[in-house]
Amino acid sequence: MHPLDAFFRPGSIAVVGASPDMGKIGGIVFKNIMGSSARGNIYPINTHEKTILGIKCFPSIDCLPHSPDLAIIAVHAEAVSDVLRQCVKTGVRAVIIISAGFRETGLEGKMLEQDLKEIIKGSKTRIIGPNCMGCFDAHSKLNTLFVSPKKFQVPSPGGIALISQSGAVGTAILEYMSSKFIGISKFVSYGNRADVDETELIKYLDADKKTKAILCYVEGLKQGREFYNALKIVKKPVVVLKAGKYEGSAKAAISHTGSMTGDYAVFAAAMKQGGATFAKTIEELTDFGKALACCKRVRSRAPKIGIITNGGGFGVMCADMCIGGGMHLAEFSSETREKIKKSMPEFAEINNPLDLIGDATSDRFAAALDAVLLDKNTDIAAVFLWTLGISLDEKIAGVLISAKQRHKKPFLVGSFGGNYTGKLLIKLEEAGIPIYHTPRRTMKAIKVLVKSE
Amino acid sequence: MHPLDAFFRPGSIAVVGASPDMGKIGGIVFKNIMGSSARGNIYPINTHEKTILGIKCFPSIDCLPHSPDLAIIAVHAEAVSDVLRQCVKTGVRAVIIISAGFRETGLEGKMLEQDLKEIIKGSKTRIIGPNCMGCFDAHSKLNTLFVSPKKFQVPSPGGIALISQSGAVGTAILEYMSSKFIGISKFVSYGNRADVDETELIKYLDADKKTKAILCYVEGLKQGREFYNALKIVKKPVVVLKAGKYEGSAKAAISHTGSMTGDYAVFAAAMKQGGATFAKTIEELTDFGKALACCKRVRSRAPKIGIITNGGGFGVMCADMCIGGGMHLAEFSSETREKIKKSMPEFAEINNPLDLIGDATSDRFAAALDAVLLDKNTDIAAVFLWTLGISLDEKIAGVLISAKQRHKKPFLVGSFGGNYTGKLLIKLEEAGIPIYHTPRRTMKAIKVLVKSE
Repeated sequence: MHPLDAFFRPGSIAVVGASPDMGKIGGIVFKNIMGSSARGNIYPINTHEKTILGIKCFPSIDCLPHSPDLAIIAVHAEAVSDVLRQCVKTGVRAVIIISAGFRETGLEGKMLEQDLKEIIKGSKTRIIGPNCMGCFDAHSKLNTLFVSPKKFQVPSPGGIALISQSGAVGTAILEYMSSKFIGISKFVSYGNRADVDETELIKYLDADKKTKAILCYVEGLKQGREFYNALKIVKKPVVVLKAGKYEGSAKAAISHTGSMTGDYAVFAAAMKQGGATFAKTIEELTDFGKALACCKRVRSRAPKIGIITNGGGFGVMCADMCIGGGMHLAEFSSETREKIKKSMPEFAEINNPLDLIGDATSDRFAAALDAVLLDKNTDIAAVFLWTLGISLDEKIAGVLISAKQRHKKPFLVGSFGGNYTGKLLIKLEEAGIPIYHTPRRTMKAIKVLVKSE
Repeated sequence: MHPLDAFFRPGSIAVVGASPDMGKIGGIVFKNIMGSSARGNIYPINTHEKTILGIKCFPSIDCLPHSPDLAIIAVHAEAVSDVLRQCVKTGVRAVIIISAGFRETGLEGKMLEQDLKEIIKGSKTRIIGPNCMGCFDAHSKLNTLFVSPKKFQVPSPGGIALISQSGAVGTAILEYMSSKFIGISKFVSYGNRADVDETELIKYLDADKKTKAILCYVEGLKQGREFYNALKIVKKPVVVLKAGKYEGSAKAAISHTGSMTGDYAVFAAAMKQGGATFAKTIEELTDFGKALACCKRVRSRAPKIGIITNGGGFGVMCADMCIGGGMHLAEFSSETREKIKKSMPEFAEINNPLDLIGDATSDRFAAALDAVLLDKNTDIAAVFLWTLGISLDEKIAGVLISAKQRHKKPFLVGSFGGNYTGKLLIKLEEAGIPIYHTPRRTMKAIKVLVKSE
């Protein structure tokens, strides 16, 4: 068992500062753990209450019948050290410190945080936090997050792991993923990273069987060199979004997670050299993540892309992004063109981007996608759907899912629209076919599927 | 009355090719017009049917009791000329030709399209199309679109006009706007623009009282010089998205709307010099449009932006985009800082980006936004909400709407999230406060609100 496993699959959990009050951190975290389907024994620690949500309270960690595997601390910053000492003493292996008021608040907080590090030195106790929002494992179903269950539904199980220095950014991404049916493996909000940091986490997630791609939101790295070395070792794709690009914005990161952001250009170069994918926005982080979690990467220095659409304008924009992104429009073989021609009106031209025309049916899409994916001149396909087309019906979802099952060659699907489009496409996302909102986002994600070395 | 008014507020409408079959163009268009709340007399033209949807059919335009103001033609390309001749003969002023099979299909189609131009020469009859999807006026409620009402809800009335060379791109944007409660004034899918083109449309929309901002999706311009000259004259903000940037993608535009796309760099330079805003993606087109339709632009060469958030990481990313976009972080006055300090915890620092911290309430946002908008050192404010924050409740919508009503200084709101966030923010969009999904999109839209001359 890996030492960090206790954060995600503990046999027992204590919540220090558990509360019946849902306006308090310890109220929300305790409720979320109680709502997690697989959680083992749970011990609320509270000196005033006898029971919380029907569960017997204990006055402190060292009064528990058994030492828990995981302790979550949600008390005032000044009280954290004492609790942590008890955790070390009783052999608790994993401690999540939600409490804020440390390094991010100035000198006094920095000293409090230094104390935490001293307390665990030489012990088997590991810390995530302080000043964090907790963890979530979609496969073990353990939710230790400090996010109101009234506002928030956890995402479904899948292949994306997300680690975030900012709890707000991390949980907002989770909310987005949940509503879009994008599956996740593990989430860690690691805050001030007094102990466990991004380097250790990406190594851990690289070994995690459920994780296919690792997303990181960072403001600054604790150990830049170590992170870079880890990137070179890990086998799974890592996508990094870094905030704090300029002096003026980096300053803000100090009071946020107490981290120096360092030189952005140096960072970007190191990430690239380390083999990580660099995301410039939150949307890119999740867009790239879902492509990498669902599709195998293609090795090519001159990737050839086949673009299929029933909305000509979308095809033109996809081609713009394809060429602008340094990729190539595949030249379909004469065999491919003949196959496609059979399902098209007589006057239609067979080009790439392939315009199946506004009256395209789901069957026409099926024939074209099969032909393009079987063409040796195509490395990856992009399908951009105009769902409002008169002859396109809901069968299109089945067509794409069937193609995904039958072909090894990767393809991504894009579509721009509103409620009808959203409903139609959610089925695809659930089936592991990533959907993108615009030609730009579709083609950018396709580019991430290409490994140039 | 302007000659183009008949396309949007006709006293009577004939649908040539009207059909009871919802699998046909004339079936869908007729149903959409019947569903429009203000439409005057309507005449289905069909030689086989006696009535359609209970309305008496006529065999041809010249058999009608009165000449209609608007005729919509949805018959085979070869039959269009004859119908158009009847329209000219009976004095129909506005003709929308939905039918495809013209210029975009090659030489024969080009000749058919040339015929249409010859037929209307010297007459009062004007054409939108052929190869288009029709028009929509959210204020007159007239919907002549070729989009199935089963899939599509029309957007609500508002200030954005959209003209699109591509019917698919245009209607997909409408579907998006409808689902996001972004209000529209008029929509025109103008297709092959045998007659009415983008230049005439933007001049017309500039004079339209309901229109606050004009969005254009173009692949190529019919008369580049005239469009450029029109841009210099029009008073309302115009946002242009142009597809067909490279030779490989431009080729696709020819078979799509039969248009040569021209040199992208020349086009971009001309647009900028003409005073238009250039959008690189569909999202930018709508993002910029809603900012310009809801907020007054600010004249400044060095715009000073105040950023307010309750999620520190979002603040850092907004600051990144602010500085990266050539804008400045406002330096709040000591008076402003004192005002904000009153509603903040003691340890909190008052900077820009202003982190109201994870426990910020709606009231704390209200006090901070008021202070920042009243500060002389701020030109525009950005509010980035982390809706999952423990103390932030639904009152935040009212706080922002109230600030919008009390302050002249513009502000935009951003928030990244899922279902809960979406529901909370839809109220704002309906109230005329544009919402953006990411720090990048928020700050890019803010930049569009700045006029540097």
